[in-house]
Amino acid sequence: MKYTDATLQETSEVLNESHIAFLSYKNFSGKKKAAFLRAIADEIEALGNDLVHTTMKETNLPEARIVNERGRTTSHCRMFADLVEDGSWVEARIDTALPDRMPSPKPDIRKMLVPIGPVVVFGAANFPLAYSTAGGDTVSALAAGCPVIVKAHPAHAETSAMVAGAIQKAMEKTGMPKGTFQHVFGSGFEVGQTLVKHPLTKAVGFTGSLAGGKALFDLANQRPEPIPVFAEMSSINPVILLPETLQRDAETTASKLAGSITLGVGQFCTNPGLIIAIENDGLNRFAKALAQEIEKVLPGNMLHQGIADNYATKLKQALAQKGVSVEGQSAEEGNTSQGRPLVASAPAEEFIKNPLLAEEVFGPFSLIIRCKHRDEFHAVINRLHGQLTATVVADENEFSNHKNLLNVLIEKAGRLILNGVPTGVEVCPAMNHGGPYPATTDSRFTAVGIDAIKRFARPVSFQNFSDDLLPDELKSSNPLGIWRMVNGQWGKN
Amino acid sequence: MKYTDATLQETSEVLNESHIAFLSYKNFSGKKKAAFLRAIADEIEALGNDLVHTTMKETNLPEARIVNERGRTTSHCRMFADLVEDGSWVEARIDTALPDRMPSPKPDIRKMLVPIGPVVVFGAANFPLAYSTAGGDTVSALAAGCPVIVKAHPAHAETSAMVAGAIQKAMEKTGMPKGTFQHVFGSGFEVGQTLVKHPLTKAVGFTGSLAGGKALFDLANQRPEPIPVFAEMSSINPVILLPETLQRDAETTASKLAGSITLGVGQFCTNPGLIIAIENDGLNRFAKALAQEIEKVLPGNMLHQGIADNYATKLKQALAQKGVSVEGQSAEEGNTSQGRPLVASAPAEEFIKNPLLAEEVFGPFSLIIRCKHRDEFHAVINRLHGQLTATVVADENEFSNHKNLLNVLIEKAGRLILNGVPTGVEVCPAMNHGGPYPATTDSRFTAVGIDAIKRFARPVSFQNFSDDLLPDELKSSNPLGIWRMVNGQWGKN
Repeated sequence: MKYTDATLQETSEVLNESHIAFLSYKNFSGKKKAAFLRAIADEIEALGNDLVHTTMKETNLPEARIVNERGRTTSHCRMFADLVEDGSWVEARIDTALPDRMPSPKPDIRKMLVPIGPVVVFGAANFPLAYSTAGGDTVSALAAGCPVIVKAHPAHAETSAMVAGAIQKAMEKTGMPKGTFQHVFGSGFEVGQTLVKHPLTKAVGFTGSLAGGKALFDLANQRPEPIPVFAEMSSINPVILLPETLQRDAETTASKLAGSITLGVGQFCTNPGLIIAIENDGLNRFAKALAQEIEKVLPGNMLHQGIADNYATKLKQALAQKGVSVEGQSAEEGNTSQGRPLVASAPAEEFIKNPLLAEEVFGPFSLIIRCKHRDEFHAVINRLHGQLTATVVADENEFSNHKNLLNVLIEKAGRLILNGVPTGVEVCPAMNHGGPYPATTDSRFTAVGIDAIKRFARPVSFQNFSDDLLPDELKSSNPLGIWRMVNGQWGKN
Repeated sequence: MKYTDATLQETSEVLNESHIAFLSYKNFSGKKKAAFLRAIADEIEALGNDLVHTTMKETNLPEARIVNERGRTTSHCRMFADLVEDGSWVEARIDTALPDRMPSPKPDIRKMLVPIGPVVVFGAANFPLAYSTAGGDTVSALAAGCPVIVKAHPAHAETSAMVAGAIQKAMEKTGMPKGTFQHVFGSGFEVGQTLVKHPLTKAVGFTGSLAGGKALFDLANQRPEPIPVFAEMSSINPVILLPETLQRDAETTASKLAGSITLGVGQFCTNPGLIIAIENDGLNRFAKALAQEIEKVLPGNMLHQGIADNYATKLKQALAQKGVSVEGQSAEEGNTSQGRPLVASAPAEEFIKNPLLAEEVFGPFSLIIRCKHRDEFHAVINRLHGQLTATVVADENEFSNHKNLLNVLIEKAGRLILNGVPTGVEVCPAMNHGGPYPATTDSRFTAVGIDAIKRFARPVSFQNFSDDLLPDELKSSNPLGIWRMVNGQWGKN
């Protein structure tokens, strides 16, 4: 099937329609929005195996992974449905009037979060379902009360069109206004840029490369009215191995990490691309065991040729840097559409001098940084950029020898993991999927879990309004029964 | 007294010290931070009349206003002390492990807000105490656990130095690390730019002009690592008069608004600079009554000569626009350091064509927009930029004739006021002092009230950590007794 790029005229019409839809959709009750989000989940499930096979064809991902990702997609539709049906997410605060206060009376003031306006979402290459058309950005924005315009990722346009059709059906079945969700195609940068620059666009969600995310961020900030961009971009997810624990658990740690490095041909934003350890016998055993594990993993087809080419280029660049040597690679070479698993190592002094060694190599690759001593080890950690995750493998007692480690790491990452692997992002209220730049463009928000809704909302206060004119969330009788802070006290009053 | 601009070398030392302080200050308990914030309030009070007289001398503000503003400053120190001592502000979420879940076990994940890092705050000209050295930005950042560097406003450098001395004393008395609060001088733009560009700076607070705030915002976004800027900049705070109510209440409305327009020589960010109404007999009576009230108000000394000159220039520009005519002005002309109260009016068709008429004239000025009919009235409202506030004067029954009015206004402002005036910003949990651009650079946060703390915090998740390594806020036993969401349920468990 061929998809045609949206014209300038078409994108303008799309935004106008989105704005008109916003003026009614934003006022829909949580119950009504919940019905819509649940209908999206139902309609995606109703696409059945057709969707699974189309996605397999377009992305080279195996069936089990796609079925799993579809489950995650429909789950987050239902999770956000529950959240908005409950309604407490709006952070309602009520301060009642004190008309007799001296020297001046205190007015009645009430505040809640309201939706920010039309949101443009860019589908992600590596999550054709869970971070694309009905992905986390789209569904959290719809839940907040914002209409969404998705720009389909050109690598899986057919999958995107099928999911868009499901959302369209859900809109019709649950009586949503026409422009609540819209879907456009664009093979290059132009359509996306036009969407981001349009004055009626109020926020942007993006998952992809640092170059792509940064370009949209700059574009959005240069608008006459700057708008927030939530771009999840680049993370090498350092794994820090403490020496005594490594001596003891070198082989089991290697085995766990090999699985995480090669999972999904390494095409996860949480892929562990950097391993940091102090030279000792444990590190040598670990590197050897990791190399042996990696040798056993076959090259896999990558999502699309662009990603495979990019992996080859970035890998070649990394391996060409001074001091970098291959520790082990897949026994089979694979073809040019595949990602060949590889682990390399480099001395810490080179990592410290050479910023290229801290760049993401998107694919089944990891670089071991060998530190001569404690000081070098901490110097490497201090030099890390912002990350989605940082993992420490350590017996808890060993932290007493590295007291400041967690204190420093917390500044570097959005999620700290102890004795686990960074891949596998649980969708739950406590999940933070975000982190300091360049992991994302805004470390204050998560892209996964219920709090992702807050990216698309802003507070508004109502002063001296009577119940008749207030939204239900702020009426005195609390007709929705939501959690609110009333005169400083939390409760369901 | 003379104050010397900080050199490049000095600002670098300041940031290094701030970063070192951060690594310990961020871990201080809410109790300890609360003691510090309360000590700041005490030390400011201990400055007694010396502070009041110095501020009077530097700002031309009357004693009562300064005493009042000092009260607001010490109150917000104590409000944030209470907030962090309580501790629930960190939005703790706990999802406990499900080791037997199929197909994969669920790990234990816990999340909370942590401080973002060193914050640079620019003192505001129009609030020498409440939005300057120990102002809302400084105190909310310190409460979050961020060290603060204040760049004193050159117009009240001595006031700023005195308050900085009080904070210094509070730091010493409560055992805060050396760089927790620092104070620098800078008469031009250079010092501020250097502070914002320094890699160790993690956020910026600013209150002032659109040009100044936008310049800092651009600078911060162009850094190798972009950082958030909370700039409160420009708002004309439209007041919308519905016609039937205006017919009835023309004179009382005029009297209330005259007070709000001229309060503090009009030098408030919430000053009502625009009044929108439909032509009728009520509007003529209102304009006449407002003119009469304004004529009675004497010109007042403005904060400093720069502000007085700027008022004169912007006023001259506004009055020179096509269709603008003076309705009334203070009977006395005043001198060049004073702001002469003035109200003018313009036909809606000119307002719609001429963007200069929507620009802020900082001072005791307001422009009445006369709309020929309903359609023009709503066209004017649709054209409004982002605002801190929007006020509607209306009998509640009259909204049935203007059903979409509030629906549109909510997109334009951070606070809606019914039958009141926009000046007077109550410090309480339900207050939102913020709004869409150009009112601020980030409509998702408030600069006033407890939620101002969230500007300076970011979420971090801890996966698979035991109690020993977790912050108190996330330990299973809830030793701090704070509100948390545990497995989806709010409570103090």
